[in-house]
Amino acid sequence: MLQIPHRLLHGPGPSPVAPSVLEALGKPCIGHMDPAFMRIMNEVREMLQLVFRTENAMTLACSGTGSAGAEMLMDNLVEPGDVCLIGINGVFGGRLTDKAKRAGGVVHNLHAEWGQVFDTDEILAKIEELKPALVAFVHAETSTGACQPFDRLAEATHKHGGLLVMDCVTSLTGLPVEIDAWGVDAAYSGTQKCLSCPPGLSPVTLSERAMHKANNRKTPANSWYLDLNLVGNYWGGSRAYHHTAPVNMNYGLHEALRLALEEGLENRWARHQRVHELLKAGLVERGFEYASDPEHSLPMLNLVRVPDTIADEAAARRQLLEEHQLEIGGGLGKLAGECWRIGIMGHGAREENVSAILSALDAVVAQPV
Amino acid sequence: MLQIPHRLLHGPGPSPVAPSVLEALGKPCIGHMDPAFMRIMNEVREMLQLVFRTENAMTLACSGTGSAGAEMLMDNLVEPGDVCLIGINGVFGGRLTDKAKRAGGVVHNLHAEWGQVFDTDEILAKIEELKPALVAFVHAETSTGACQPFDRLAEATHKHGGLLVMDCVTSLTGLPVEIDAWGVDAAYSGTQKCLSCPPGLSPVTLSERAMHKANNRKTPANSWYLDLNLVGNYWGGSRAYHHTAPVNMNYGLHEALRLALEEGLENRWARHQRVHELLKAGLVERGFEYASDPEHSLPMLNLVRVPDTIADEAAARRQLLEEHQLEIGGGLGKLAGECWRIGIMGHGAREENVSAILSALDAVVAQPV
Repeated sequence: MLQIPHRLLHGPGPSPVAPSVLEALGKPCIGHMDPAFMRIMNEVREMLQLVFRTENAMTLACSGTGSAGAEMLMDNLVEPGDVCLIGINGVFGGRLTDKAKRAGGVVHNLHAEWGQVFDTDEILAKIEELKPALVAFVHAETSTGACQPFDRLAEATHKHGGLLVMDCVTSLTGLPVEIDAWGVDAAYSGTQKCLSCPPGLSPVTLSERAMHKANNRKTPANSWYLDLNLVGNYWGGSRAYHHTAPVNMNYGLHEALRLALEEGLENRWARHQRVHELLKAGLVERGFEYASDPEHSLPMLNLVRVPDTIADEAAARRQLLEEHQLEIGGGLGKLAGECWRIGIMGHGAREENVSAILSALDAVVAQPV
Repeated sequence: MLQIPHRLLHGPGPSPVAPSVLEALGKPCIGHMDPAFMRIMNEVREMLQLVFRTENAMTLACSGTGSAGAEMLMDNLVEPGDVCLIGINGVFGGRLTDKAKRAGGVVHNLHAEWGQVFDTDEILAKIEELKPALVAFVHAETSTGACQPFDRLAEATHKHGGLLVMDCVTSLTGLPVEIDAWGVDAAYSGTQKCLSCPPGLSPVTLSERAMHKANNRKTPANSWYLDLNLVGNYWGGSRAYHHTAPVNMNYGLHEALRLALEEGLENRWARHQRVHELLKAGLVERGFEYASDPEHSLPMLNLVRVPDTIADEAAARRQLLEEHQLEIGGGLGKLAGECWRIGIMGHGAREENVSAILSALDAVVAQPV
């Protein structure tokens, strides 16, 4: 039988999962066309609408991880030849670019230093210049801890008939994400960050404007599995069978969403901020330096420089894992070897977890292997 | 909290899940880059190699349902302009065709009546004529209950440098599936059929010949999420982060595979055959007529005509579900309204389940609503 070690999950996700979510995951499987499962899908959709702060009818849990959700949006919203403007200030803007290109998009990138955000005026000027069919930015860059403001982007994008796309994989339920108020046309997230459900599904939402584009393509989307004309009919509309939905993963997401809404989104955002400040104070007190823009840092993902006293950062992370059961993340891409990523997400954003993180860091940084 | 009704799952899948698989699903989540999870992935791969009867190094659980596994193969193995030969004798051959076309394939179809299989000589003649780069047939057509023989196909396909692809979504561990002995270059399955794990992952396996093609494409695959050059590095090779694997779903698959191998594949195949014969005897005794070719019928999926006494077959299935907790499948595609699909898969292929199915049918067919 499978032996699973005890871990404190404080990397970039997956985050610690509440016991009731694990219990929901292990409930008996039922059919993907069962009226009882249709009710669960409806409730998942309604709760996703609440956490996304949207009335978008096309709101669902894509049957893959966050990367599949990103691909679902690029595949359905980008037509061959479409001009796209995508910001790259970390790993995930680069991945969006790759996906948009595979969908046939003509992609123009804005670049910012990793850990920094884009100046809104710079983005607006580029939108005026390119008049892109699609504008995509990462709200919460999981690879750098930077939080991109989204104000004024929708108006500028819509002026030229474009669609505004947001990656909110790491921010959803940990920070305000206001799909309708910000005028975002399509967004995707993951379950394993601030929602604290195991990975395997990707919440996505699309406005009527976005669905108008998806429904009126000249060529089919690259993907059958992610084709919103087909998936959308299963999640709503005719309920026509498309694929066999990951039934038990949807149970887990249902319970994770219920917990988030029971707590209240405002309370949950405030809890992430409060626990972030506690962690940050402890880290700064110990001489850790933040590597992301202090004005635009995420509360749930803390990017710090590896202390000079640590010669082998990968060995130090192994020691944290093996001796203290603590998982933190290494740097990704350009930041590999230079930075650590410390996550306090969802069920893991608690005062006692901060104490455990700081104690483990004290032991390993003071006495590196 | 989520209330899940009790169900006897005897449709086309998902099938009943063993308690230890549900228990595994609900174990605490750990990181997707944790060495302990890497060990689990290695064990999942080793066990998948055993159930596929292959030594293929590229054997893994694709992070989506069976339809994603099918798309992973079409996306990576079909290059724009490739001539493909795909058999359609049910819904799933049609879907493979759609996916191959989206990948840029020039698809030629062979058609057979739904419920029938293709004559091997007819396939061989078509391969000789077309010299296709890819030949794909469905081993176990979940929409019709037909079982396609695969003998002699590999030799003919390889003679012209082509790749042989097999859909074994419904057959894996319920019937002999011999990837290496049959010379199959790439195959995909699902977890929710005879493996009796909830849906959410797709076991796939690719030969070195298939991977040579995937690794030497002139253009990237349509999909980033399913790109085997990237996914393969995470499952083997450099272990480079690609996407966040569905950790808990892999726990469930691990336990489901362990149970299958503990029973022994030959014993499991024999059990499916034995329980099928018991079910068939009971159905025939009650006047049910099989609608699939009796020489090539699947044991785990029984296609029967809706009895003449039933005026509203959907209402009868609802009655089976609501009054007897029994899920059976309706007909799919051309067979909608005409046939029922009764599955006895994996953990559900048991004598006592046959009794429950027959009792429920007796009650509903004798007294339809």
